Amino acid sequence: MKYSAGSLEWMHLRGGVMPTTFEEELSGLKEKILLMGSRVEEAIRLSIQSLVKRDSKLSRRVIQNDRDINDMEIEVDEICHRILALYSPTAGDMRFITSCMKINSNLERMGDLAVDISERALTLNEVPPLKPHIDIPRLADIAQEMLKGSLDSLVNRDAELAKKVRERDDEVDQLNDQMIRVLITYMLDNRSVIKQALDLILVSRFLERIADHATNISVNVIYLVEGKDIRHQP
Amino acid sequence: MKYSAGSLEWMHLRGGVMPTTFEEELSGLKEKILLMGSRVEEAIRLSIQSLVKRDSKLSRRVIQNDRDINDMEIEVDEICHRILALYSPTAGDMRFITSCMKINSNLERMGDLAVDISERALTLNEVPPLKPHIDIPRLADIAQEMLKGSLDSLVNRDAELAKKVRERDDEVDQLNDQMIRVLITYMLDNRSVIKQALDLILVSRFLERIADHATNISVNVIYLVEGKDIRHQP
Repeated sequence: MKYSAGSLEWMHLRGGVMPTTFEEELSGLKEKILLMGSRVEEAIRLSIQSLVKRDSKLSRRVIQNDRDINDMEIEVDEICHRILALYSPTAGDMRFITSCMKINSNLERMGDLAVDISERALTLNEVPPLKPHIDIPRLADIAQEMLKGSLDSLVNRDAELAKKVRERDDEVDQLNDQMIRVLITYMLDNRSVIKQALDLILVSRFLERIADHATNISVNVIYLVEGKDIRHQP
Repeated sequence: MKYSAGSLEWMHLRGGVMPTTFEEELSGLKEKILLMGSRVEEAIRLSIQSLVKRDSKLSRRVIQNDRDINDMEIEVDEICHRILALYSPTAGDMRFITSCMKINSNLERMGDLAVDISERALTLNEVPPLKPHIDIPRLADIAQEMLKGSLDSLVNRDAELAKKVRERDDEVDQLNDQMIRVLITYMLDNRSVIKQALDLILVSRFLERIADHATNISVNVIYLVEGKDIRHQP
């Protein structure tokens, strides 16, 4: 980090047009978050595809591309700090910016989890498949829908949609529990598949964590729209 | 949440003396973070103790006490929002506040992981022990030292200490890998311990995640003190 956030050199190096008004800064921030969200969605999709299609090239691509997501995380934080420092935003805009900072952390962590899944896929693709993947793609679909829903709810400031996303978290937890139970029976039946089953249990857990982060994003959107902090409420 | 952050009613209900100056607000914020940190340290310590001493009462205590940590998370965010809204802090103070918001999220998540460990302990305490715990208490000690170090580095704005904490993360990863490897051999040797070994693998992973969060806190302290964002750097 040679250039500090908000400096002219920094803007120039990034080749961007320097946002000149508060509104431009805010819409730039929103665009960057959505761009990052779409990269994270892609990472999750490819990580599962690499597992289901047994394509290790895809796994490696996800691992490599995570650098871009990491860079975006830093950039989003820089934009947030710059806006806070230059414009002293009022309560509503402040909420938007602090929510973006939290959503940013959640997205970056989801990218890491896609990397974790890809690393498991690299190991799993080296050995014969344990069983056809049915529950993992299902779990992945729900997690991805939740991520998409949470980002849509952010764009449209739609607290009702955010609440619907949050409600799906239980479904994911149940599916994850069921997967683990089934995989343990495989372990019990045949010791030669213990490592594979363990890797699949981890993948299931990574997906469950991805859904948790989508839930966190939704909770942030609800806070943003309604001013209510519903974290840790049933 | 009936009362918005910063309102007089809100201060009154919490029974606190309303901080009147910016400096009082900042030191109140710091105190609250440290109090939360000590509660999280306690939760981790008790969760491991509940496992090692096979004391399910302790596990349940950790699960119950997590509510307080959750409440503190919301309170810290409220304080941060209030300071941002009322005082439009300058660059350095702004960094302190946004760092506190991130440290807050990390601490809350560590509390959740102590709950995860306690839930595994509840299951493990129902069956005969698999083996004497040697590596888990060691891993837990390192994770706890890292948390303590990261909070000390925050209090003393000590970037060098924060860097030392960050360096220990590799040690934790290696110990976690080793633990998983050993536990897999137990699974292979005796199918009747598969579930137990799996629970212990999860505990090991939860501790590894706790160490990751201590690392995140340290990275935030480095950013706070040196203004350098070293996330995602080797």
